[in-house]
Amino acid sequence: MIKNKVCIIGAGMVGSATMMSILNSGLVAEIVMIDQNEKKAAGEALDAFHTTSFTYVPNVLIRQGNYEDCKDAQIIVMSAGPSVKPGEKLDRRILTKTNAEVTRSVMKEIIRYTQEAIIIFVSNPVDVVTYIAQNEFNYPRNKIIGSGTLLDTARMRRIIGEHFMVDTKNVHGYILGEHGATAMATWSLCNLGGIPLSDCSKKFNKPAVNQEQVLKEVIDAGMNILMAKGYTNYGIAEAVARMVKAIVLNELSVLPVSTTLEGEYGIKDVAISVPCIIGQEGIQSILDIPLTKEEHDKLLASANSLKEIIRTIE
Amino acid sequence: MIKNKVCIIGAGMVGSATMMSILNSGLVAEIVMIDQNEKKAAGEALDAFHTTSFTYVPNVLIRQGNYEDCKDAQIIVMSAGPSVKPGEKLDRRILTKTNAEVTRSVMKEIIRYTQEAIIIFVSNPVDVVTYIAQNEFNYPRNKIIGSGTLLDTARMRRIIGEHFMVDTKNVHGYILGEHGATAMATWSLCNLGGIPLSDCSKKFNKPAVNQEQVLKEVIDAGMNILMAKGYTNYGIAEAVARMVKAIVLNELSVLPVSTTLEGEYGIKDVAISVPCIIGQEGIQSILDIPLTKEEHDKLLASANSLKEIIRTIE
Amino acid sequence: MIKNKVCIIGAGMVGSATMMSILNSGLVAEIVMIDQNEKKAAGEALDAFHTTSFTYVPNVLIRQGNYEDCKDAQIIVMSAGPSVKPGEKLDRRILTKTNAEVTRSVMKEIIRYTQEAIIIFVSNPVDVVTYIAQNEFNYPRNKIIGSGTLLDTARMRRIIGEHFMVDTKNVHGYILGEHGATAMATWSLCNLGGIPLSDCSKKFNKPAVNQEQVLKEVIDAGMNILMAKGYTNYGIAEAVARMVKAIVLNELSVLPVSTTLEGEYGIKDVAISVPCIIGQEGIQSILDIPLTKEEHDKLLASANSLKEIIRTIE
Amino acid sequence: MIKNKVCIIGAGMVGSATMMSILNSGLVAEIVMIDQNEKKAAGEALDAFHTTSFTYVPNVLIRQGNYEDCKDAQIIVMSAGPSVKPGEKLDRRILTKTNAEVTRSVMKEIIRYTQEAIIIFVSNPVDVVTYIAQNEFNYPRNKIIGSGTLLDTARMRRIIGEHFMVDTKNVHGYILGEHGATAMATWSLCNLGGIPLSDCSKKFNKPAVNQEQVLKEVIDAGMNILMAKGYTNYGIAEAVARMVKAIVLNELSVLPVSTTLEGEYGIKDVAISVPCIIGQEGIQSILDIPLTKEEHDKLLASANSLKEIIRTIE
Repeated sequence: MIKNKVCIIGAGMVGSATMMSILNSGLVAEIVMIDQNEKKAAGEALDAFHTTSFTYVPNVLIRQGNYEDCKDAQIIVMSAGPSVKPGEKLDRRILTKTNAEVTRSVMKEIIRYTQEAIIIFVSNPVDVVTYIAQNEFNYPRNKIIGSGTLLDTARMRRIIGEHFMVDTKNVHGYILGEHGATAMATWSLCNLGGIPLSDCSKKFNKPAVNQEQVLKEVIDAGMNILMAKGYTNYGIAEAVARMVKAIVLNELSVLPVSTTLEGEYGIKDVAISVPCIIGQEGIQSILDIPLTKEEHDKLLASANSLKEIIRTIE
Repeated sequence: MIKNKVCIIGAGMVGSATMMSILNSGLVAEIVMIDQNEKKAAGEALDAFHTTSFTYVPNVLIRQGNYEDCKDAQIIVMSAGPSVKPGEKLDRRILTKTNAEVTRSVMKEIIRYTQEAIIIFVSNPVDVVTYIAQNEFNYPRNKIIGSGTLLDTARMRRIIGEHFMVDTKNVHGYILGEHGATAMATWSLCNLGGIPLSDCSKKFNKPAVNQEQVLKEVIDAGMNILMAKGYTNYGIAEAVARMVKAIVLNELSVLPVSTTLEGEYGIKDVAISVPCIIGQEGIQSILDIPLTKEEHDKLLASANSLKEIIRTIE
Repeated sequence: MIKNKVCIIGAGMVGSATMMSILNSGLVAEIVMIDQNEKKAAGEALDAFHTTSFTYVPNVLIRQGNYEDCKDAQIIVMSAGPSVKPGEKLDRRILTKTNAEVTRSVMKEIIRYTQEAIIIFVSNPVDVVTYIAQNEFNYPRNKIIGSGTLLDTARMRRIIGEHFMVDTKNVHGYILGEHGATAMATWSLCNLGGIPLSDCSKKFNKPAVNQEQVLKEVIDAGMNILMAKGYTNYGIAEAVARMVKAIVLNELSVLPVSTTLEGEYGIKDVAISVPCIIGQEGIQSILDIPLTKEEHDKLLASANSLKEIIRTIE
Repeated sequence: MIKNKVCIIGAGMVGSATMMSILNSGLVAEIVMIDQNEKKAAGEALDAFHTTSFTYVPNVLIRQGNYEDCKDAQIIVMSAGPSVKPGEKLDRRILTKTNAEVTRSVMKEIIRYTQEAIIIFVSNPVDVVTYIAQNEFNYPRNKIIGSGTLLDTARMRRIIGEHFMVDTKNVHGYILGEHGATAMATWSLCNLGGIPLSDCSKKFNKPAVNQEQVLKEVIDAGMNILMAKGYTNYGIAEAVARMVKAIVLNELSVLPVSTTLEGEYGIKDVAISVPCIIGQEGIQSILDIPLTKEEHDKLLASANSLKEIIRTIE
């Protein structure tokens, strides 16, 4: 029987921050940390487990475990594999070969124990590993989600909300395509509480935003944080917690995440981020939002760029 | 005017995890990260700030700042200064000289801007730096709190709760004295939902706990986590968030924290942890809980041990 | 000094439900219930105060009080005065004369003690009483907020989200104008995650929504709930809690609330709901969103209808 | 398959307030209101459902339903049947005959659909109806919980915490026995953060509490609130939400609730409140806490008093 239990594979910076974000969401009864480095997984679990004594932290069971724990998990978060390090080429694609292999070996373990859990991929390049997981294994495709541009979208909204001094939750529009250099913004849909982005300068009496510059800032954000602190973790951790809530509460929320398209937007055989409805079954459907010709071309270009990467690791 | 704003001094592992725990508490409108390494502080703030776009994260302003930001802060968290590193002697006291100086220089900055904020010290050795801050500066003593054995107490309760399979929030008793090797447990007060610890083995039909071993496990917990993951952060971060809530909501909660005693328990002129009432004024009073002769002796010994350390840095 | 304290005037169905929603928001240290019927206020406060013993309810001070308590309150919620009762004419306007007087007498009390608190009006007809409070008293206009169509907007989004089986938080668009029979919907802005409402039928493979019918359902919702349960309370209570969070955390959130216009949308000298930015200063600005000619005409008609009502009570 | 779904039977004051407390707990994906008065149930559900549009309210499905909805519910809250009304004899026992019958008819419905849900009884006299449900039907006894003295315990802690100006969560001790006139307090276990109640006057420099008077205040609290506001609802609603959290997160929390004893405390064949461990299986075990002879006598007397009531309705 499926329990409200989350397994986190990879107890590194991202996995452990995700553990805390999920703990603080107050939604799950059990969190299991799985890592080849069992000592590290146990250390992270223990550090968090102690906090359950504090009045407002729920009494969640947090412990080190192994793949067998996946068998009654509702959600599995896959954050294992290396990340880009400061000093390296700042492109998540350099991780492709390594993390493709890591993904294959992790999926082989998971399918030994379950085909029911929703699996959230955050390892990079996330679109590539999501594609591998969705297409090379006999696992229900809708139950595999790549975190994709969910965080990039949050970054875009935050930058624009900050610029106009408006709650970021009132900023709309998406970053879609690759979680990486070829990501594109749906500027035609971007608005603040109903005011099109192009009118915001006048309406808010502030300088206009430079769209190209905002997109560049979004794409570079991960690498800039990496340069500043050596890694990124809190942003992606909360992105995962957002998905966990949508799944556990079956919220049917629209979130831009990575999945293999099957003709949507005229694209197939590649995983990229587009707005999807997320609920207890994972990706319950893919939303067909209106794009301008220019935006659609950029989405296609991003998809094609990713297809080339995928070809290299097949 | 004091705003519901928290300044965190030190953007290292502890400071940044504390930032996230406070953000997730949903209590404050603004979090400012202050660090000599401004790039690091900015990177941590940015990583967290992006998360405010996610539906259930409050729209908090999170940014890098400097000491001047303390002037209208309600709470200041002091986490700056080096921590014990794996490979070093596993004793927080090795940090004494360095962090005494860090504390003095930070306090000099803070008092330029405020005497109103509640300052929470988490740097180690926390009892020593709390003593310095409370006694060498003209800052209201009650407004300075050392995190002390708040986390050790959480660890003790967690270990015992886990052993008997009972919610850790129903485990009572404290770890008091030094946040370190001479910490002691108030075993005579320890109970699970009203059942004295000594009766729990029979009542829960489980092996008895070995008190000495539990205390050792508590004292070693920080160092064991340090060995496993290279540092400790999530436990102390949630401990700080617990205090922040008690302060912002003026909860008048009993929490074992470090403060300079003035005759309580027959001890003075040293900062150690004893149960205190925490509210909007910081440490609103010190609780005089009943101890056995043996427990009291151990508390005195812990205090005396700390006094010697303090003498070395005066 | 302003404390994080909320005074609720009126301990009826709405006031008491609001007390619980604010308590559960975990944001404030003190809630004071003020009612001519002091016994009722005390009873409601006591019922809620007991809950602070439960582990996850914050230790908030909840008590019966009087207008003097407003002097250091951050927020005042005004819910006093009669509501429409089942069996009466189902129009909030029948309360006009009575609640105009109630508003005047309450405002006279409040201004004796403060000009700093943000005052949230929920009594009906909310636009009329908001107008009176903002224009007949020397109180900063931005610090008075009418709950207006905030709840109507929530209802519209809920109905449409339910119809297409999508998270209501991904439904956009507003109900504006009067909180009552002449309210209008900004259908031209309405979209689900970026998909215009007019395309949703096809994109979601569901029947189209009948806009007129949805608007009617929204306008009638309050009265339908009133007929079913004798009053409405939980919806408006959570609407108030939403505003309280935006104020306490200075979120700068876009919320459709009632305020006296001064030329915005070509309207002045009447209070109606339009999208506003809500933060610690109350209504920090009024948003000028794009409307079609037809929508603008309806907004004008709603404003004119309210002006006539206002004339009757001057 | 069991979903994270709660069915609430009875959409009156208690049932609807419970709906809101559970919604605000953010733990469940679906809340179903069941009442003979379907219109009332639908009205309450609709009032709450609208609130899911507000940013921080989770997107929970809330709707009117019927007993068939129990078949995949994780938890059922039973609040149906009349309550004591102002003007009546202020004793929950006057409801015995009526609510015994209501309980039987509700249980007959429930067992048609499930034997898996945890059923929480709040209707009064709660000990009597809990006894009926646990003993007259073939339903797993541990899966039936009477809310019992959980709220009385909260009230006792609140009164004492308020008296000494200490966070109520640091007040320990229980109210046990009948949820009614014969309830007793475990004064020998009562302490504030480790300080025995008898020492608190001196330690906190406040007048001593009069134990008899506190117990009377606790026992009368429900009736006093009833006299002041016409009913009680928020206190019991949060008590239920506390149990729901313990169940959904399998917290193994010690809570004083009503259950049929089978020899514990030398009592059997009657349901009274004693401290129990609450987790995903309902009442996972009964705690055998130490009582003084006098306390034990009072518990026996309370049990015997209830036995007489039970005899009248067999």
